[in-house]
Amino acid sequence: MNIQLECFPCLFNQTLESAQLASDDREIIREIIDTYAEMVPEIGEESKTLEVVIEMHDVIEEKTGVSDPYADYKRKNIETSRSLLPEFKKIIAQAEDPLFSALLISAIGNSIDAGVGLEVDIESNLGEISKGVFVRSDYGLFKKKLKKAENILILADNAGEAVFDELLLEELQEIVDITYAVRDRPAINDITMKEADMLNIDNYARVISSGSPTSGTMLDYTSEEFQDYYRKADLRLAKGMGNLEGLYEEDEEIFHLLKAKCGPVSDLIGIDEGELAFFLND
Amino acid sequence: MNIQLECFPCLFNQTLESAQLASDDREIIREIIDTYAEMVPEIGEESKTLEVVIEMHDVIEEKTGVSDPYADYKRKNIETSRSLLPEFKKIIAQAEDPLFSALLISAIGNSIDAGVGLEVDIESNLGEISKGVFVRSDYGLFKKKLKKAENILILADNAGEAVFDELLLEELQEIVDITYAVRDRPAINDITMKEADMLNIDNYARVISSGSPTSGTMLDYTSEEFQDYYRKADLRLAKGMGNLEGLYEEDEEIFHLLKAKCGPVSDLIGIDEGELAFFLND
Repeated sequence: MNIQLECFPCLFNQTLESAQLASDDREIIREIIDTYAEMVPEIGEESKTLEVVIEMHDVIEEKTGVSDPYADYKRKNIETSRSLLPEFKKIIAQAEDPLFSALLISAIGNSIDAGVGLEVDIESNLGEISKGVFVRSDYGLFKKKLKKAENILILADNAGEAVFDELLLEELQEIVDITYAVRDRPAINDITMKEADMLNIDNYARVISSGSPTSGTMLDYTSEEFQDYYRKADLRLAKGMGNLEGLYEEDEEIFHLLKAKCGPVSDLIGIDEGELAFFLND
Repeated sequence: MNIQLECFPCLFNQTLESAQLASDDREIIREIIDTYAEMVPEIGEESKTLEVVIEMHDVIEEKTGVSDPYADYKRKNIETSRSLLPEFKKIIAQAEDPLFSALLISAIGNSIDAGVGLEVDIESNLGEISKGVFVRSDYGLFKKKLKKAENILILADNAGEAVFDELLLEELQEIVDITYAVRDRPAINDITMKEADMLNIDNYARVISSGSPTSGTMLDYTSEEFQDYYRKADLRLAKGMGNLEGLYEEDEEIFHLLKAKCGPVSDLIGIDEGELAFFLND
């Protein structure tokens, strides 16, 4: 997805936030945001937002020496998510359709997005479960394809929601072989191998790095190993806005599971900001 | 108030929003946001946020020919606020302390702030009335000073909340002579003489232009007439963040009435974002 006008101030926010997490030095933070500002007029209409994220990550690492500004934030998100697990497990156990509930909970976990804003009240998002709807849904189609599938590739997103993904993996593991792909290097609060090691994902799935150095998946930036899994997958499930942005123009069938958290993505998929969607790309 | 790091992305958002309201031409909008981006590294630590707003207003007017991008938005805000008036009037009529309720409603109106974001659900902000509190309050002191005052100068803020201000003016007019100062030229969704003419403020108060060309009040930028009222006022009541930003370092006594809508202002006055305050500067 090419950069949209709305992405410019949003990336500015993200840059400031990352810089402030990486450093307390006001001058260094100012240098970083000035660097972003100087970059803006050079960013062409065909540029990808995810590529700008890579550039800004490099600038922040270079100027602060910190490669993972969100390390603590991710750890805290994982703790919060863990504290909510028992409640979610109960919901799934009592659900008429446990797989559907697990997908919904996994999508709600997608509310935790440092790219959009640090302060997410995971618990208040719980309220959305009772609404229980994907505004755009291809769940029926997913179930049909799942019956015929032998394996599924899941593209992970942020570290906190990965805790909830365990519940989805638990449902899916009875049916298919699962590969769960995480980012190759820190990108905002996205899950990398380091956070995956803190979780129990490997009880249910093969965990691999996608090779992605940004908060999403652009195939050109992924590893050969990942591309091999990608090509051979019977089913693909991509979580979150970054994976959607990076893969939206690809030809392969991909189910996207996400909460729409900004105007450009909401417009792209035809739902309102704040709504949940689970759909097959076309 | 000098520009804070958080102001840079916020002003970027405001610039994009204003540009999109002023023009549908993507190239022109892009030119405007590039101009802002180029300006950022030149903005010194001692610069005032309100001065940057003036510069960006000039850029937008020059590139689009539109001097008041928020004209329609303000008109709609006034309509929405008007539709809520009967309910507010009832609340004040039934209140134990009508002046306190009128001040609270006037502060709640301050939620309508295009500088922070266009989408404000005025009606949902109604819910805050039931909470009924200023987190920081010098109401007792205000009442005491009001008893001795013969006149009050009120510095207005956005156009939509001015409708609610009428209720406050109705309470105050019994007690003091009121001067109500609006901006001199359009600045975001702030009230100017044009919107004041759509309202009934002149039933209760002398309406003047402050001379301010930005979304706040910096004395150096105000008219002599305004400065005269300012100096001679027995009481001063300034609404909203812009007036606070511009006047915070002045020596005269000023009561500030506002909703804190950003980190820097919340930090400055010691309350959390989203909270209401009514206090005397120190």
